Amino acid sequence: MNVIEILDKKRLKQELSYDEIKYIFNGFLNGEVEDYQMSSLLMAIVLNGMTDEETFALTDVFINSGDILDLSSIQGIKVDKHSTGGIGDKTTLIVAPIVASLGVKICKMSGRGLGYTGGTIDKLESIPGFQVSLSDEEIIKQVNQIGIAITSQTKNLVPLDKKVYALRDVTATVESIPLIASSIMSKKIASGADKILIDIKVGSGALIKTEEDARHLSKLMIAIGRKYNREVRTLITDMNTPLGKAVGNSLEIVEAVSILKGNGQGSYLFDVCVELASNLVSMALGNSLAEARRMVINNINNGAAYRKFLEFVKWQKGNLAALPLSKKTVIIRSDRNGIIKKIDAAKMGILTFELGGQCAKQGDTIDYSVGVIIHKKIGDEVKVGHALCTIYLGDKNTYSNPLDAFEIV
Amino acid sequence: MNVIEILDKKRLKQELSYDEIKYIFNGFLNGEVEDYQMSSLLMAIVLNGMTDEETFALTDVFINSGDILDLSSIQGIKVDKHSTGGIGDKTTLIVAPIVASLGVKICKMSGRGLGYTGGTIDKLESIPGFQVSLSDEEIIKQVNQIGIAITSQTKNLVPLDKKVYALRDVTATVESIPLIASSIMSKKIASGADKILIDIKVGSGALIKTEEDARHLSKLMIAIGRKYNREVRTLITDMNTPLGKAVGNSLEIVEAVSILKGNGQGSYLFDVCVELASNLVSMALGNSLAEARRMVINNINNGAAYRKFLEFVKWQKGNLAALPLSKKTVIIRSDRNGIIKKIDAAKMGILTFELGGQCAKQGDTIDYSVGVIIHKKIGDEVKVGHALCTIYLGDKNTYSNPLDAFEIV
Repeated sequence: MNVIEILDKKRLKQELSYDEIKYIFNGFLNGEVEDYQMSSLLMAIVLNGMTDEETFALTDVFINSGDILDLSSIQGIKVDKHSTGGIGDKTTLIVAPIVASLGVKICKMSGRGLGYTGGTIDKLESIPGFQVSLSDEEIIKQVNQIGIAITSQTKNLVPLDKKVYALRDVTATVESIPLIASSIMSKKIASGADKILIDIKVGSGALIKTEEDARHLSKLMIAIGRKYNREVRTLITDMNTPLGKAVGNSLEIVEAVSILKGNGQGSYLFDVCVELASNLVSMALGNSLAEARRMVINNINNGAAYRKFLEFVKWQKGNLAALPLSKKTVIIRSDRNGIIKKIDAAKMGILTFELGGQCAKQGDTIDYSVGVIIHKKIGDEVKVGHALCTIYLGDKNTYSNPLDAFEIV
Repeated sequence: MNVIEILDKKRLKQELSYDEIKYIFNGFLNGEVEDYQMSSLLMAIVLNGMTDEETFALTDVFINSGDILDLSSIQGIKVDKHSTGGIGDKTTLIVAPIVASLGVKICKMSGRGLGYTGGTIDKLESIPGFQVSLSDEEIIKQVNQIGIAITSQTKNLVPLDKKVYALRDVTATVESIPLIASSIMSKKIASGADKILIDIKVGSGALIKTEEDARHLSKLMIAIGRKYNREVRTLITDMNTPLGKAVGNSLEIVEAVSILKGNGQGSYLFDVCVELASNLVSMALGNSLAEARRMVINNINNGAAYRKFLEFVKWQKGNLAALPLSKKTVIIRSDRNGIIKKIDAAKMGILTFELGGQCAKQGDTIDYSVGVIIHKKIGDEVKVGHALCTIYLGDKNTYSNPLDAFEIV
């Protein structure tokens, strides 16, 4: 086999064999295939696609590139949940404690934000003292004892995906359904859970822009799960508008706590969290979605979900009372009368990034205290001078005009 | 401007502006844009194409990346000739002395072979002592005195193309009409000739596989020439079968000499050379193609073209008598009776490469003495035991079965 021949095949839209995919991707991991050859292949995959068989092969090569977490010493069904990411998405922080409070064991590895999309690990790290790096033994012990752990990815879990993803990020090759499917599913399968729920975000603030792409991704991920005997469910949820009122690490922790305390009932964020939690519970316990939903709402209302969140933060050594929140705020007011037609999620993400709330590249310092609180929702009537949002400022004072994120007609 | 935004635009098949093309390609030349980003862009260009305006812009950025050879101190019209390359293509070695013998000044920079396609410079270097690196002053002096010079590319002529081409070669991004057009035309324009003839080779042994691609390339190159006030003519010629009988550096010099001596009249190689030379002469002198053709054949028959070749080799310090030719030969005989339907040019190129007659990568040692002489042509009747070709062997003894290059029905 020969790298150029494999590149030529994909350029000509021919199907690569399992062995060819293994050869070129493992070659990239061990340095025999150059990064400029891999990026050429990735762009050819983005533009010419991959068949389902190719996607299964790539996922398998990803999984076998590193360790596989063995959760068999945790009793019972273990669930995992993943979101394809979006602006203001703090659902993991809410859903995981809810299901754990109902006795469903959840063990989740999360990522950091990059560019203008946030990451659960960054949000958790805004809580002073919070430990995101746990050993396999610590993870297993914690899940056995309190039913929940959320950690950063362990060092040798799917190292090939890590290396490929870093390259995709700087070569404009992120937006590919087969590459997204194999990247997510390889990590979920290597993380060891029995049942996996994927929240596919669609819209201007998400990686996936159209419903059609979302359905394609959903089908692929369910099919990959079947290959490894894992039950996969997917939900397709909207990400045109930021999810909830808060965008920014500490501000999102505050909002998550508020939802767990039973506030925000009837909001889209509350509904999405209930839907995600109910699906996880019904997958794990085998009951109906309606029954699971009743249990979920009950545990929010009786405080059990919130208490589980506090227990979880305490186990991972976080000090919630010390959460940093900027005191320097600016209220942005409407310059016209009208109805709010759109609140652009991507623009809110970029704004938070500009304020210093996200990494531009791995290792950058994050200002956890900055962000935006949105006071209005789509359909609200506003008049000149009404507060649209509040900006929590850090040291960075040049940022896009927040008014541009609101379309008022 | 931002590299990722430019990559995204090309991925989404949007037109890049002159400034965007300049920004990303010059960035690559000076090291600000990484090679893995450039290869991602190149694959996107191969698959999504480039508009004519984008191709003009890229050509201009190429030309201005280095020096431009000033041939104004050479009196009269200066012509140049380029072939898109193929197996056994020794036309430059024949055509250049013919036109120079008719007083048409030809100043040509040639390339080396890579993979299984040959290069004029490698062929000339098979002549012991032959100097391919001349300074600008030496080139101008030689063309003024004897009307002909063939040299390797001077160091700082279109350095950006050199860097981009090296990357294309290892990332399966060679086969793109706009990239081929801008690469060739930028070098031709920077080399300073007034009138340029391009021999576009089409077929299994060539970079361009279809007539349609050849016509597209032709139109593009003529349009680029017009932008810089250079007359460009193109010929589209066949490269399904090796051009002539010889493939391999020294063997091709021997064949070129033979054609210049007036042998091989009526062969396809002879006809192609006459056609190329006649076009160059009629472009330079402004006479009809028929008149130019008469002059060309006359100067082959009266020995003037051959004497010009000897003068040219002597000026560049080559010792033709010392040409290395392998004495280790194997005659390959037909294993069946029938008519020769096809002689595969690509397979003959690969065979010569396997014998050590071509570089696998820049800087490899070449065995100039190896190659193949083909004894039959398409349509010939053969019987079991008839000689099909003779292999000139070097030290490398594992090579493809030469019989596979012949289709006998």
